[in-house]
Amino acid sequence: MPLQDYMKIISVDDHLIEHRNVWTDRLPAKFQDAGPKIIETEQGHHVWQFEGGIYANIGLNAVAGKPPEQYGMEPLRYDDMIAGCYDPVQRLKDMDVDGVQAALCFPSFPGFGGGVFHRAKDRELALACIRAWNDFQLDEWCATDPERYVPVILIPYWDPQLAVAEIERNAPKGARTISFPDNPVPLGLPSFHTDYWDPVFSAAEAAGMPLSMHFGSAGFVPGFAQDAPFAVPIALFATNLMWSLVDLLFSPVFYRHPELKVALSEGGIGWMPYILERTDYTWERHRWYQPINKETRPSDLFRKHIWGCMIDDVHGIQNRHEIGVDRITYEIDFPHSDSNWPNSRKRAAEVFADVPDDEVHQIVELNARELYNFK
Amino acid sequence: MPLQDYMKIISVDDHLIEHRNVWTDRLPAKFQDAGPKIIETEQGHHVWQFEGGIYANIGLNAVAGKPPEQYGMEPLRYDDMIAGCYDPVQRLKDMDVDGVQAALCFPSFPGFGGGVFHRAKDRELALACIRAWNDFQLDEWCATDPERYVPVILIPYWDPQLAVAEIERNAPKGARTISFPDNPVPLGLPSFHTDYWDPVFSAAEAAGMPLSMHFGSAGFVPGFAQDAPFAVPIALFATNLMWSLVDLLFSPVFYRHPELKVALSEGGIGWMPYILERTDYTWERHRWYQPINKETRPSDLFRKHIWGCMIDDVHGIQNRHEIGVDRITYEIDFPHSDSNWPNSRKRAAEVFADVPDDEVHQIVELNARELYNFK
Repeated sequence: MPLQDYMKIISVDDHLIEHRNVWTDRLPAKFQDAGPKIIETEQGHHVWQFEGGIYANIGLNAVAGKPPEQYGMEPLRYDDMIAGCYDPVQRLKDMDVDGVQAALCFPSFPGFGGGVFHRAKDRELALACIRAWNDFQLDEWCATDPERYVPVILIPYWDPQLAVAEIERNAPKGARTISFPDNPVPLGLPSFHTDYWDPVFSAAEAAGMPLSMHFGSAGFVPGFAQDAPFAVPIALFATNLMWSLVDLLFSPVFYRHPELKVALSEGGIGWMPYILERTDYTWERHRWYQPINKETRPSDLFRKHIWGCMIDDVHGIQNRHEIGVDRITYEIDFPHSDSNWPNSRKRAAEVFADVPDDEVHQIVELNARELYNFK
Repeated sequence: MPLQDYMKIISVDDHLIEHRNVWTDRLPAKFQDAGPKIIETEQGHHVWQFEGGIYANIGLNAVAGKPPEQYGMEPLRYDDMIAGCYDPVQRLKDMDVDGVQAALCFPSFPGFGGGVFHRAKDRELALACIRAWNDFQLDEWCATDPERYVPVILIPYWDPQLAVAEIERNAPKGARTISFPDNPVPLGLPSFHTDYWDPVFSAAEAAGMPLSMHFGSAGFVPGFAQDAPFAVPIALFATNLMWSLVDLLFSPVFYRHPELKVALSEGGIGWMPYILERTDYTWERHRWYQPINKETRPSDLFRKHIWGCMIDDVHGIQNRHEIGVDRITYEIDFPHSDSNWPNSRKRAAEVFADVPDDEVHQIVELNARELYNFK
């Protein structure tokens, strides 16, 4: 039996759609006018307005439960979505239907990693918006049921000391992970090959909070052709995480931060055996004349510092021992288009049909509890 | 026994370094002054000079036989290279030492796909340079032993009719494949989602010549961080071909050109099961509302139109049946740093240790003979 009833699914990659009052409920009076607001377009769509920009809740963000024939890219209204998209009480019911115990819910309008606020002109306002989102996540969303939501926070990237302060403010409140861009460079920030991030990564180590790098969170869309159908980047988004992983493994980050943990979110796992083999092969041949560590094989760093997650990854599961069963966590991706909701357990039972119970239990529940200190 | 003596290795990805007279021997008198020339720098390095630009023969282009501890990126002189880099007679001896029967040798100074000439200011000169390189390839390099060199040609990208003419000029001379950029977009050219390439692809079909897309041949270097060690893009170059493959599979190319064949050169194979699974998953969910074919699964297109090659790809070989044994060819990458020269057969014997004879024979020899019509 591949997925026993006693195994509780912890989804490490779900998404919430911010309700219309997330910021109006929380921002100080002086920012009430300038803060993010939902407006209705002439077409009757609900969109976010912030610093003169318009941000759509695109359709693929909230298609859970629809048949693929009805998927579309057009913006939506709140009343076109099932309430579990934006209501944490209703979400628990959607999770019950799907047989999911707990979920880590990334932001939507701010970007998975909060990039919208990073690009804001008024940084005092942006910091207030980040703090408001974190308070919403911890005090409203996750507080609905602390045993069923894994709290994730945003940090200001433009000032490492402010980022450290935000980590230290939220750790005692129960924050379990930091949403970090899948790479800082597309946001115009210093790379992993600089010392810019050292205070942030040290604070993450001290708080025992892994970085959760969601693909696309830096705004980088993979693929050569702007005129390609959007199916191309959808199929390719994991290449962002291949880039991030190799960048990290050939950087000084894990030597300077031996306790740092990184979760690669929504990227799948089936590519990991190839990338690790190729990265080791490169290291064997090219470490001598380059500024990379000469002592530790990249795949050994991976097995200490990196976790992946999977949703429907037959090739990855067949080759799980090359990756390491302890490296693999599970995701539902509710309410996005990759999700199998409300049939996630049924599909998981098929994917795990030939996997021993103890390994399935590790993948769907125990690894995530350990990684996120979510016991 | 995994690699029998009767199996002859056909390497579908090797490299030649152009000798100093490739163009001076062939360009018409009016282009003798303007054509590519080797000059010696103040440091004593041999570099190409063309239209005011300087092009180094970087060290990694010619490290075959050196221990990795002596690899470097610095430019070289011809007399620092083993002669087989630039001399087709000596190359045959290097192939004999390595137990290799035949080799497809890509250009070096022009770029793997001839991008240097595509970017030239004087297009009449550029076309003459492309024709000269093709004449060198066919009449000098491959003519040394037509049973041991697989002729590859360059084409002018800026004018599809000129490209067709160059294909038709070289097909009767024995050309077997066209070096095509791993994606046209980074060269500033129209994508696969336009009709720009239709005459070229029709000519390739008519001539029975596959496109050989060598990773990096469009000048696109993968990776987020400019300040990363060069080991990062070396490990990641196959992601170019992941992008190219998915771009092709979601384009109209294979519907318009049902006989077109594409070889993905130097990209390995271990990533293919994941990318195919992910692309099919995307197609299942997103084909309804997007301008992509709704009838044929991307993985079925792959199994008709695409070939990969491998050099030392343990994960790929273990999962060869997911890719299709008939999709896999073999490469030596002489004289580049990935090569196992002069121990290629020894290493192949290790990689193929558990593979049945008939499958090894397909991979190292028969598939390439079929694909390139090189009997």
